[in-house]
Amino acid sequence: MPGSVYTSLARKMATHEGRVYPLHVGDTWMEPAIGCRMEDLSERDWPGLHRYAQPQGRPDLREAIARRTSERMGLATDAGEVLVAAGATGALGAMAGAIIEPGDEVLILAPYWPLIAGIVRSFGGQPVPVPFLGQVSSAAEGLEAVEAYANDRTIALYLNTPNNPTGRLLERAWIEALVDWSRDRDLWLIADEVYEDYVYAGEHTYTRPLAPERTFSTHSFSKAFGMAGNRCGYIVGPEEVIKEVRKVSTHTFYSTPTASQVAALRALEIADAWIANARERYAALGRFTAERLGVEPPSGSAFLFLDVVDRLDDRGLGGFLEDAADRGLFLSPGTSFGPYPTHVRICFTAAEPALIHEGVELLAELMGR
Amino acid sequence: MPGSVYTSLARKMATHEGRVYPLHVGDTWMEPAIGCRMEDLSERDWPGLHRYAQPQGRPDLREAIARRTSERMGLATDAGEVLVAAGATGALGAMAGAIIEPGDEVLILAPYWPLIAGIVRSFGGQPVPVPFLGQVSSAAEGLEAVEAYANDRTIALYLNTPNNPTGRLLERAWIEALVDWSRDRDLWLIADEVYEDYVYAGEHTYTRPLAPERTFSTHSFSKAFGMAGNRCGYIVGPEEVIKEVRKVSTHTFYSTPTASQVAALRALEIADAWIANARERYAALGRFTAERLGVEPPSGSAFLFLDVVDRLDDRGLGGFLEDAADRGLFLSPGTSFGPYPTHVRICFTAAEPALIHEGVELLAELMGR
Repeated sequence: MPGSVYTSLARKMATHEGRVYPLHVGDTWMEPAIGCRMEDLSERDWPGLHRYAQPQGRPDLREAIARRTSERMGLATDAGEVLVAAGATGALGAMAGAIIEPGDEVLILAPYWPLIAGIVRSFGGQPVPVPFLGQVSSAAEGLEAVEAYANDRTIALYLNTPNNPTGRLLERAWIEALVDWSRDRDLWLIADEVYEDYVYAGEHTYTRPLAPERTFSTHSFSKAFGMAGNRCGYIVGPEEVIKEVRKVSTHTFYSTPTASQVAALRALEIADAWIANARERYAALGRFTAERLGVEPPSGSAFLFLDVVDRLDDRGLGGFLEDAADRGLFLSPGTSFGPYPTHVRICFTAAEPALIHEGVELLAELMGR
Repeated sequence: MPGSVYTSLARKMATHEGRVYPLHVGDTWMEPAIGCRMEDLSERDWPGLHRYAQPQGRPDLREAIARRTSERMGLATDAGEVLVAAGATGALGAMAGAIIEPGDEVLILAPYWPLIAGIVRSFGGQPVPVPFLGQVSSAAEGLEAVEAYANDRTIALYLNTPNNPTGRLLERAWIEALVDWSRDRDLWLIADEVYEDYVYAGEHTYTRPLAPERTFSTHSFSKAFGMAGNRCGYIVGPEEVIKEVRKVSTHTFYSTPTASQVAALRALEIADAWIANARERYAALGRFTAERLGVEPPSGSAFLFLDVVDRLDDRGLGGFLEDAADRGLFLSPGTSFGPYPTHVRICFTAAEPALIHEGVELLAELMGR
């Protein structure tokens, strides 16, 4: 997408009169659970709240994460295999710094979360998108897809399920096939599972229990508990390599904010009901959105990826985005997620439900639905 | 220092019975100013407190930083020249990612803040320590020192004033000479000024006004306002390059924690008196420490760097550190700060003044003072 279109969209967003529908942002309108908000945290209850935490994360938080991970994955997990990081982004950045040498290639199942490509590039690696979600319809086809893009510079395979931007899950059989293939080729597996708690149909498959010796899995308090501004997530992987990841994280953000870690710990203790409620509300919004737009409802995550090819004119996707922006509706271009110049992504949890309803209505009109 | 010594020290720290004097940590015992603590921040007053902030930083905070920087440096500074980051560490990490190509060398005036060497290495660069503070006694000698270590792979010069670990300031005439030399060689200047507010004798010299076209200066709410756990700092530099720095920061921690940015904004608005009070208390602790140990009082920062060569036995520095640890006193080894195998660093603000007094007393005994 040309910079001029971004500039034009940014200007429209800054100057739009009337309601704005920020469906391009991957966030939630919900506030964190009571007891997990900044105003709930004090030095009195949490000595050292404003001082450095351990670079690998507070011991109490890492222990709590290890317990939750052991349960969820059905794989005994030790705190030494856990690194708390400045969001899953910080975790993936540090992981990339630890495993990538300049020239290394990383296969990325597409469409993909946009930052992963830049993260790989930040450390001299080459992201290699593999068209996959929505294009592959069996485990065998999945293997053909990755095989076609692999070579002897390939060091890792990145997958994201529940998927941002498509709202789809990777099926267990497909993941199992990809794991076997990665083991044969001695590749790292990077399983980005930040939407693990937001599954509306089918079942989330954890990659790590299938290959704990080569899998990094990343998780997010931002997404799970509605605290993206806190910048706290984590990565779980083989202890010896997590030590290397920690060296990079120490040199890129040092430690994860102490108050954010405390908020995360509290969330693990008291906010499972918050997740259950959010899941129900997100699912309803996803169903409404899909139905109004005439597409399949999302199986997970907070997104839908829509092909608008039949509504594009000679201005291409940029024109579609500008027309939407003229109505106060902001969307993400498909090109941010891989080679998808006729798609847009919307986040159906980015604003209050009433705003989502109105924004989806506007989009339906633009899509002629 | 062998890993076995670290392991032994860590074990002693975990199992020590009785009081612990953590003089190895670079932090403060003081709580942030009232009004700038997490418990003071609420969604009601600060909508979006738990949601993503802009990757470059909140506009209100960047504006406030630009105004403060303009005043302090006497150089008109625009918000576009400011990037808010996950601590000065995050700022320096992202800056390194933006300017370093593998094989590039960065001159580092030594003794230096330990993380800078790893930051340079994280992006494939080579840190080149230049023995300087305490070893150079004129601008001309300073130039000789850097000239001896520069070559055609050198791309930048890092300086830290007020200095961690020595507690010294770089004199204006020296900095002016280094700036001219860097301009002649077309090098970047990286001025780490996180202790700018903590000067007890002499005057802090800002590097950036002398060469705004090639200087990055880094600053810290952690150090200025006692909120290291919040992970919020900033970097100021040429706008075009700050855009490149932002690309790296977006891929290593995405954005700086929102609540931490709000705390920083509040601190700029209401906490200058907190700094004045902290400065007085830090200065008194620095004077006490220096006097008791028989060394020159610190001119700035929160540290003293002590040569203990006449107290070492055949166990070397590790033995000295272990003897200290047996008394509950923890110190940083000089080898973390460059080629200083007979030095230790202490932070005289790391704990309550009463603890500092006792810890310094223990150290004085160990040093035979």
